[in-house]
Amino acid sequence: MSVRNGRQFISIPGPTTVPDEVLAAMHRPPIDIRTGELVEITDGLLQDLRNLCQTTGFPNIYIANGHGAWEAALSNVLSRDDKVLVLESGSFAAGWGQAGATIGLDVEVLPGSYQKAVDPAAVEARLKADVSKDIKAVLVVQVDTASSVVNDIPAIRKAIDNAGHDALFMVDTIASLGTMPYKMDDWGVDVTVAACQKGLMMSPGLSFTISNRKAKEKHTHANLRTAYWDWTARDGEEHYHKYAGTPPVHHLFGLQKAFEMINDEKLENVILRHHLLASATRAAVSKWCEGGVLSFNIPDPSQRSNSVTTVLVNDEKALNEILNYCDEKCGVVVGIGIAALSGKALRIAHMGHINAPMLLGTLGAIEMSLQALNIPHGKGGVQAAIEYLAQNVSV
Amino acid sequence: MSVRNGRQFISIPGPTTVPDEVLAAMHRPPIDIRTGELVEITDGLLQDLRNLCQTTGFPNIYIANGHGAWEAALSNVLSRDDKVLVLESGSFAAGWGQAGATIGLDVEVLPGSYQKAVDPAAVEARLKADVSKDIKAVLVVQVDTASSVVNDIPAIRKAIDNAGHDALFMVDTIASLGTMPYKMDDWGVDVTVAACQKGLMMSPGLSFTISNRKAKEKHTHANLRTAYWDWTARDGEEHYHKYAGTPPVHHLFGLQKAFEMINDEKLENVILRHHLLASATRAAVSKWCEGGVLSFNIPDPSQRSNSVTTVLVNDEKALNEILNYCDEKCGVVVGIGIAALSGKALRIAHMGHINAPMLLGTLGAIEMSLQALNIPHGKGGVQAAIEYLAQNVSV
Amino acid sequence: MSVRNGRQFISIPGPTTVPDEVLAAMHRPPIDIRTGELVEITDGLLQDLRNLCQTTGFPNIYIANGHGAWEAALSNVLSRDDKVLVLESGSFAAGWGQAGATIGLDVEVLPGSYQKAVDPAAVEARLKADVSKDIKAVLVVQVDTASSVVNDIPAIRKAIDNAGHDALFMVDTIASLGTMPYKMDDWGVDVTVAACQKGLMMSPGLSFTISNRKAKEKHTHANLRTAYWDWTARDGEEHYHKYAGTPPVHHLFGLQKAFEMINDEKLENVILRHHLLASATRAAVSKWCEGGVLSFNIPDPSQRSNSVTTVLVNDEKALNEILNYCDEKCGVVVGIGIAALSGKALRIAHMGHINAPMLLGTLGAIEMSLQALNIPHGKGGVQAAIEYLAQNVSV
Amino acid sequence: MSVRNGRQFISIPGPTTVPDEVLAAMHRPPIDIRTGELVEITDGLLQDLRNLCQTTGFPNIYIANGHGAWEAALSNVLSRDDKVLVLESGSFAAGWGQAGATIGLDVEVLPGSYQKAVDPAAVEARLKADVSKDIKAVLVVQVDTASSVVNDIPAIRKAIDNAGHDALFMVDTIASLGTMPYKMDDWGVDVTVAACQKGLMMSPGLSFTISNRKAKEKHTHANLRTAYWDWTARDGEEHYHKYAGTPPVHHLFGLQKAFEMINDEKLENVILRHHLLASATRAAVSKWCEGGVLSFNIPDPSQRSNSVTTVLVNDEKALNEILNYCDEKCGVVVGIGIAALSGKALRIAHMGHINAPMLLGTLGAIEMSLQALNIPHGKGGVQAAIEYLAQNVSV
Repeated sequence: MSVRNGRQFISIPGPTTVPDEVLAAMHRPPIDIRTGELVEITDGLLQDLRNLCQTTGFPNIYIANGHGAWEAALSNVLSRDDKVLVLESGSFAAGWGQAGATIGLDVEVLPGSYQKAVDPAAVEARLKADVSKDIKAVLVVQVDTASSVVNDIPAIRKAIDNAGHDALFMVDTIASLGTMPYKMDDWGVDVTVAACQKGLMMSPGLSFTISNRKAKEKHTHANLRTAYWDWTARDGEEHYHKYAGTPPVHHLFGLQKAFEMINDEKLENVILRHHLLASATRAAVSKWCEGGVLSFNIPDPSQRSNSVTTVLVNDEKALNEILNYCDEKCGVVVGIGIAALSGKALRIAHMGHINAPMLLGTLGAIEMSLQALNIPHGKGGVQAAIEYLAQNVSV
Repeated sequence: MSVRNGRQFISIPGPTTVPDEVLAAMHRPPIDIRTGELVEITDGLLQDLRNLCQTTGFPNIYIANGHGAWEAALSNVLSRDDKVLVLESGSFAAGWGQAGATIGLDVEVLPGSYQKAVDPAAVEARLKADVSKDIKAVLVVQVDTASSVVNDIPAIRKAIDNAGHDALFMVDTIASLGTMPYKMDDWGVDVTVAACQKGLMMSPGLSFTISNRKAKEKHTHANLRTAYWDWTARDGEEHYHKYAGTPPVHHLFGLQKAFEMINDEKLENVILRHHLLASATRAAVSKWCEGGVLSFNIPDPSQRSNSVTTVLVNDEKALNEILNYCDEKCGVVVGIGIAALSGKALRIAHMGHINAPMLLGTLGAIEMSLQALNIPHGKGGVQAAIEYLAQNVSV
Repeated sequence: MSVRNGRQFISIPGPTTVPDEVLAAMHRPPIDIRTGELVEITDGLLQDLRNLCQTTGFPNIYIANGHGAWEAALSNVLSRDDKVLVLESGSFAAGWGQAGATIGLDVEVLPGSYQKAVDPAAVEARLKADVSKDIKAVLVVQVDTASSVVNDIPAIRKAIDNAGHDALFMVDTIASLGTMPYKMDDWGVDVTVAACQKGLMMSPGLSFTISNRKAKEKHTHANLRTAYWDWTARDGEEHYHKYAGTPPVHHLFGLQKAFEMINDEKLENVILRHHLLASATRAAVSKWCEGGVLSFNIPDPSQRSNSVTTVLVNDEKALNEILNYCDEKCGVVVGIGIAALSGKALRIAHMGHINAPMLLGTLGAIEMSLQALNIPHGKGGVQAAIEYLAQNVSV
Repeated sequence: MSVRNGRQFISIPGPTTVPDEVLAAMHRPPIDIRTGELVEITDGLLQDLRNLCQTTGFPNIYIANGHGAWEAALSNVLSRDDKVLVLESGSFAAGWGQAGATIGLDVEVLPGSYQKAVDPAAVEARLKADVSKDIKAVLVVQVDTASSVVNDIPAIRKAIDNAGHDALFMVDTIASLGTMPYKMDDWGVDVTVAACQKGLMMSPGLSFTISNRKAKEKHTHANLRTAYWDWTARDGEEHYHKYAGTPPVHHLFGLQKAFEMINDEKLENVILRHHLLASATRAAVSKWCEGGVLSFNIPDPSQRSNSVTTVLVNDEKALNEILNYCDEKCGVVVGIGIAALSGKALRIAHMGHINAPMLLGTLGAIEMSLQALNIPHGKGGVQAAIEYLAQNVSV
């Protein structure tokens, strides 16, 4: 017996739900890749990326996932044995650092925690200690998809400035872009890394770097550059140069539509929608936590992201039962804990193409599972989410 | 400010949500219509229709909506000035009767109510009174989409039998098929009328009649038959005869996929899913009714259908505000009251391609609206639905 | 061994190739059927139909194939036992007449031939003989899909006028609309019948009637009207009245896109394209006919349609081999002869979404088959088509 | 005036026509990326790749275009300053070499020509001269998309063996795989590079490397490995490791369908179809060449590929007019000359999802253009293609 047959709900933190409009935009025959419409699409996308990051910088579109963009970002601005400082706050900054190590960087991790955001004071202190300016770049994620923490990017910028350090400031926005404010120029970010399959609502397969003038200047001296990732090569005259070869035709069709949807809604409204839905999620989870089995991975409410909520479950058997129940009985795929939280948490993604009924349906399935499985929890989680939204979505 | 941008939820009682798989099945080039695959598809669909109605009877597929099938059913078995008895229980049996009047039938309505099911005793009494056997057919709907009542088809059959009457028993299952049991042969139905856009999850544009031997025999004498609807013409040798002309290629592709999904889930499970989701809906609505503004259109719980729930709202301004809020703030299109209930009710459809999170999301949006608009209601409607499902969907 | 695997070519006279854009337009979730976008789509389509037929008349959109529209047209303007005169020139006018007979009309066929167009002089003579004005309507097809003849509609109008007869002039344009000029108002047509799956490039399932004031006036007295087809009922206030029930949501999406494509190309260019491709087809077929096995079904070149070319093959075994070879070896589905030409002809459709390479590919496959099967034919058919096009498609 | 409005024909050598079935397979919501169906799809694809290359080796699927796979192949088996020998025969081997130079390889080009295949004797001579075995890898393309030459891979293998050299033999099959025989194991290829958007009929965005045991052994010592491309990292336990991050969900759906189509047709039939269509193309081009303006870029018929035919046009104005005419008048996008042949040639792609009518339509458009533009050419090119096919496609 199940009540799962209907549209599957996917609440994993990437790929997120791809809008029907985007899938439809991808469903057309290939077109010429050298002239005409596709060239215009590329130009439009580059401007859309700038607008999204609030920058006048230089965007690149890679056929790659986010891990590819990590490598692209580092190889374009750094040289062998350069030291980079990785600011830990979960799993992904560390992963970026490990990728850097494989291409020949000297990676130092500023120790952090899965349970809290990067401490700007610690950054400042470490950079002040780097009197010889060995550190060439500081790497951080805005949101860590594993821990669900959000880091305070302007505060970290300030820490770098306070230390009087000129390292490049490189920010991975893969799990945050389109879900919360990001102001590359105002915040003094030198290189932004992004990808398409979370807040941007696209089928995975594209990732992005955006660089400012300072990064471009560093690029001219970088010796880790390779043909596939190289910004300069991608500045070539021909359209295919922008993709170092055959362009990803259908993904460009899809991304164009996704940006059209974001632009139609307006970025500030998109971000507000994420804030409201994330807050509603937290209202529900707070209730559930009263039972003592579930708890927020990020104790400090101000450090919880608008993209995803990582919920610790202190009983692995119960955790697996919840995930199975949601999937098999209700048709809802809830995200699992990964890396250090593997087997210890579930993750509720609330980013991208998501609205109130999608979120309430997802939360409803989870609450069904808690109740059906007799897992101690505060009742009325969904009720709390409904109340939060009703109070905050103005008539 | 809105939290509507995500997948639109459509909770109107037809067309219902079309599964992505069905839309995808319709997205292919046309094929030859005289031989090969399409002929096999038709044969398969005819058998699927038989299985769905639990009959060994004779199905026909019309390019038409349900109103077309009404005309098809009547014109194939009746002659000018034949009397038919229409059993009222909302809007649709009456509509069927009106269609019959336009083609030359003598239509008598057995008066009923929008608030309750057909009374089998009244049917029996009326038929007993028809000593001259003037009544050639008895027309009824299993579920009335306007009132959301469900009629007891076997009980009505019994009433006919008790009256010793041989009128044809014709049942419109447009709003019920695939959502609750329907046993054409066991229940002694002579002609079934159905359509594709509700429980069958298809894009509107196809409707069906299924007849048994008795109806086929009557058919041979009927003088209202016309080329487009005629069963005999549609029994012709060529494939196109089955559609009285060019077959509806893409709709056949889609319907094939819809039946594949029903068969994969198994009909009994499909029906059980509808029962559970309808019951959960009623649990929520019951709560809301405590506020005195909302009430069930069908007072008798045993007469509420598993397809749709009609909810009276005793304040037209509030009703419109609810509908607007759900749509504009939440992305949920809730059904409006129609016919006698226009401006007096909303309708929550829970049929076809629907699962727990879709329903809970829809109910959540409605509850948000009640709260945001300060419409008196019992709180915890969604909570009640969740509890019902958690208790009844076995682990 | 085959060279068939690629896009299947479908050269049957309906359904024709559905543009990818149209299929894509149909691939989206259903929307509300009572207000908003769908209502606007309907309004736009009704105007598009008027423009296409060059009329200020009254269009209706039916969920039905062309045979349904036949019944709709007749039942809306005629009464039981009215006499109609059917102008034979192949299979379809006769079919329309037979449909009329089933609904109670007195059908007289003006004998014609599968090999030539209706003779206006014969029409005039017959109508002049009808001194008592018993004939209430004259029925003709503009193009007969079976014979591939084109009738001269203005000349027939003139014949009616010359006879001083006031019968309704009813024209079936199912196989001609969008492929050649059709001027309903200028030509004095009272009722036009059309369908979507040929020149209009749509998936089958919609058909149309368009009436002028004279027809509308006759409508008020017609006693064959039935609920499903009735123009007056379809003029009701609610959007669903226009479809006598649930609207065919996805077909409306598709038809909207098809009209958008026609409007983008401009109707006069669409018609010119058909003229060029039909002429090229005839250039190829003329060559092939030199072998003595193939011949045009319509001897008079001026009576050959721009939609389809019926080619007689005086050897049924050879005919079947050609059809099989084209399909199995080349992936081209060529139309078969139907009705009186069953087993005697093939039909090459050149209407709707078709361009030079699609036509040349189709003709190429047929010429391959003639050669591979050693069927006597003049060589260079495709070459002749290429030459015709090169000379007539201005640089 | 144009006859272009119908399905656009795309005859560029990548991306090639994507089958409707493949586009449809990509049109579905994302699914879970950690378990279930997607994991099985990956496993199936890896086996399909092995079968396609006739190897028991080790395939990897990259989110990248072919240029990405170039970098992947080199970085996984080589170390900084390793010498590689690039066998020139057009544009692409040289491009691969240039990519190698950017990652730190010492690249030597064995000079060749755009007009002919690599000379195995020259390879043998060069390798024999490398007595110190400095050359660590030999790089060649099976088909060069620019020149349209096909290289003799087994003969080059033999040359390497004759020289007694143990350099890795690395073959780029991007423009040949699925269009002609390729036997990685039998032919002793150590690393194969491939991509999805040509013979594999997919939307661009995936590329592949396949390595044998010898290459895997070299891999363990290679110091150019980076996180994104690294084979060992991609051998990790988790499904996402295979893609170094988020899997390209929709591209995997599409590729699965493409392989299903290849497997249904059977690889040997796919290759035979390509041989027949390429030969037909050459029959047409041979005719046209009689006019003195067009000529084959590859003079030696035995060195012409089954994927693409590069045709020199000795008049740039005429060349541009042909390309424009085909596009604007006929809806056929013909490939342009690139690299050294920019402005000097056109390219007719005949690979992937292509059948007789698609090819004949394309050739027909080109012949139309030659005639309409009064460009001297031998007439009857398409006629010759038809004759070739009719003679060689057995009844």
